[in-house]
Parts: sequence; C-alpha cells; structure tokens
Amino acid sequence: MRKIDVCLSPDLIQLYDLCNMAVVVVDIFRATSCMVTAFAHGAQEIVPVEQLEICESFRLKGYLTSAERNGITPEGFDFDNSPFSYQSEKVKGAKICVTTTNGTVAIQRSKAAPRVYVGAFLNISKIVEALKSWDGDALIVCAGWKGKPNLEDTLFAGAVIDRLHGEFQVADDAALMAWKVYNLASSDLLTSVKNSSHVNRLLGLGIEKDISFCLEMDKYAVLPSLVNEALILA
Amino acid sequence: MRKIDVCLSPDLIQLYDLCNMAVVVVDIFRATSCMVTAFAHGAQEIVPVEQLEICESFRLKGYLTSAERNGITPEGFDFDNSPFSYQSEKVKGAKICVTTTNGTVAIQRSKAAPRVYVGAFLNISKIVEALKSWDGDALIVCAGWKGKPNLEDTLFAGAVIDRLHGEFQVADDAALMAWKVYNLASSDLLTSVKNSSHVNRLLGLGIEKDISFCLEMDKYAVLPSLVNEALILA
Repeated sequence: MRKIDVCLSPDLIQLYDLCNMAVVVVDIFRATSCMVTAFAHGAQEIVPVEQLEICESFRLKGYLTSAERNGITPEGFDFDNSPFSYQSEKVKGAKICVTTTNGTVAIQRSKAAPRVYVGAFLNISKIVEALKSWDGDALIVCAGWKGKPNLEDTLFAGAVIDRLHGEFQVADDAALMAWKVYNLASSDLLTSVKNSSHVNRLLGLGIEKDISFCLEMDKYAVLPSLVNEALILA
Repeated sequence: MRKIDVCLSPDLIQLYDLCNMAVVVVDIFRATSCMVTAFAHGAQEIVPVEQLEICESFRLKGYLTSAERNGITPEGFDFDNSPFSYQSEKVKGAKICVTTTNGTVAIQRSKAAPRVYVGAFLNISKIVEALKSWDGDALIVCAGWKGKPNLEDTLFAGAVIDRLHGEFQVADDAALMAWKVYNLASSDLLTSVKNSSHVNRLLGLGIEKDISFCLEMDKYAVLPSLVNEALILA
C-alpha cells in the first residue's frame, strides 16, 4: 500500500526523500489558506519567494506583491496575509509574488518533489483527490512557526490522513500522532486551536475572523500546484 | 508561571534557548531506560558519547562499554541496549561509556543547559520532582529516531507535562500535542505504542520484553544528571 508521512517542520525536511513523493505544503494560518483563496478568486499565478527584496523586485515584472513577517505586513506591498485580502476584484487574472515567515520557506524546501501542492482546509477535498490519483507515496510538509511544529498544520495533516485511510498507510510516528491529534479535535477545530500558543499569538494581531475562515472545510475546489518556480492551478 | 516545552527531535534543538532551562532527555526505547536501570543497579557513572571509536577508547580508562547502532550491538562491547543487560552484578560500581543511535546524540546536544537530566517512564516521578524544584522553565528533548519524532518519547513528554499541570504552563504547540497524545494513550501505553512504526521496527529485533519493561512507571527512584561530560546520580 502507498504510504503517507508528515514532516512536522520545514527544518526536518532533509530527513525525507522527496524524489518520488507527492508533497502537500500547508500553512493554515495563513499563507496556504491565502493562496487557495487567491486562486479561487481568479489569480493566474503565485510565485512564492523567501526574501522580501526578491518579492519587491517582482513588481517590475508586472506582479502584484504580498508580504508577511511575524504576522504583520511590511509597508509597500499590495496584499497582506489575510485570506480576505484575496477576495477582491484585483486578484482576478493577477500574477502575485508572495513571501511569508513560514509558508513560502516550506514550499521552497519541497521543490525536489515531482509534485508539490498547496493545501489548506479550504481545499482539502481537492488535495485528497490529488493524492488518491498519485501513484506513489505522499508527504505533508507543515510550515510550522519559525521551525517549530504547530497545532493547526498538524491538524490539517491528520485530516488528510484520516480521509485517505484505507488507501494510504501511515508511514511513521509523526503521521500517526497527527492523525491522533486530529481525531481528538475534529468535532470542533476552532475550540481546539484556541488553546494553541501560535493561535494565541495570532489572536494578538486581531485576526479572529481569519482564524475561523481558515478552518472552513472545502470552501474552494482549487488545486494549486508548483510548476518550476510558480504555483498555478493543476 | 514557569513554562514547559517539548523538542520533538534533536534536529530541532537549535530552536530552543537552553541557557536557563532544565532539560530532560528521553529515549524510551531504549537508551535512557537503560541508563536509569544501570544507575538503579549501582552504576557509578555513565559517559554518553556520539562515536563508536570514542566509546571503545574509554575501555583503556577502565570503563565498561555499551554500544547500539540501528537497534543492534556491534561486537566487542560489554553491554547491549537492553535494560535487562544492566541488571547484573557487573553494573555495581561500574563506570560505563555508552553510544547509541539517538539517545546519546540528544544528550550531547542538550549540554548548553544548566541542568540536564535523563528520564524514562522508569524514573518519571524523580524527573517530575526535579522539575518541580527547579526555579525556571523546562524542556523535554525527545531523542526520536534518526531525527524524526517518535511516539514513545512524545508520550513520555506528555506524561511529564500531565503531572506538572498547575505548576508549569504549556509553552508551545509541540508540548500541547504531546500532552494530547499522552492523554489518549495513558490508560494503556503498551497497546498504544504497538501501532507505532518505530516500535514495529524494534519488535523486528525480538525485544518484546524490553518494550514492556521500558513502559513500567516508577520502577526506580534515581535521577541521572549530567555533570561536565558524565552522568551521575543527582
């Protein structure tokens, strides 16, 4: 049977052999939730980059730009890191360059894989469907917070594993633990994440609305996929 | 309130500021369970080292030697990595040099902390007592398996957090998840770990007896503590 594993932090990705894997990168609060939302609202392409300066330089190539550091948007960028920013008319047809504290790092480090998808609760069914039709093993890469594992990305990993039960085998203990943690929380994700330190850090930024939105399941049927340096719809 | 955190893999230890922390290193299957057992049977000192060659060289200094790589003992060492090896007469008063795949690496990487204890289910009450009397934050460093998190070390971390509830606050999501996973499993640790890939790997080595032994709670009231390069009883 195919196997599914979970990398709880981008800082552990060197332990995984990506070369035959379908990888799903997740940063629930909020990078990948924003990307999914942007594609659902007509974005044409999203280029994830690690550095602010590189992100700014994409403006000259006709891209809109989006940046976040420590949950806050530096001045001079078109979008912040809220999924509500990506529901406006200007997203339609746009090419967007994005840099965030955790999510874009995780995407960059996953590039060695033959398939890299961007996942969130918002498009979880599309992710599950993509993995079902992939003829090999899968890895969910959690963006975490500055290298540390976080609850919400782990919950997403557990939710995907739960939906793939019977078709994929749990590869290792990180995946097993993600599944267990998800099963504990699945009936009420919002209450469960409210005890999380990372969420408390984010609530300090006044983004309660974002938190609830990012926990909605299957709001959008889009599958962002990395092709060379850019995310496009698969 | 003091905070307690969990480092799920030695490969993430650079993310934690150890300089004011009491650190507990855990490698349930089997390095720290063996060390606790050895001290309970009269070992005088245990020196954890990372390399086989260094371990061998301690023989010239009058040490007995213990080695494990991938669960197996290379030839020419006095002890293997089973807690039953450390219950014999030759342990009494012995100085032992130990190298293992995961546990000794985790101890070496924790050295920057002002207190480093070696923990296992076998001595969990002594660990809890030591942290209660420590006037600062605490970190449990899970040895994992070759850099990847594992279930049994995470369960131990969760068990310690559970016993310190009310005196220490959960610092971050890794600690929160360890606590959740432990609460799910606490009524029957053995059944819970039997689904773990790491344990299945170990069961392939024919060490069922070791697994059950290492899950026994509070068998020994010893507190191994790192002083310079050596573990001694605190």
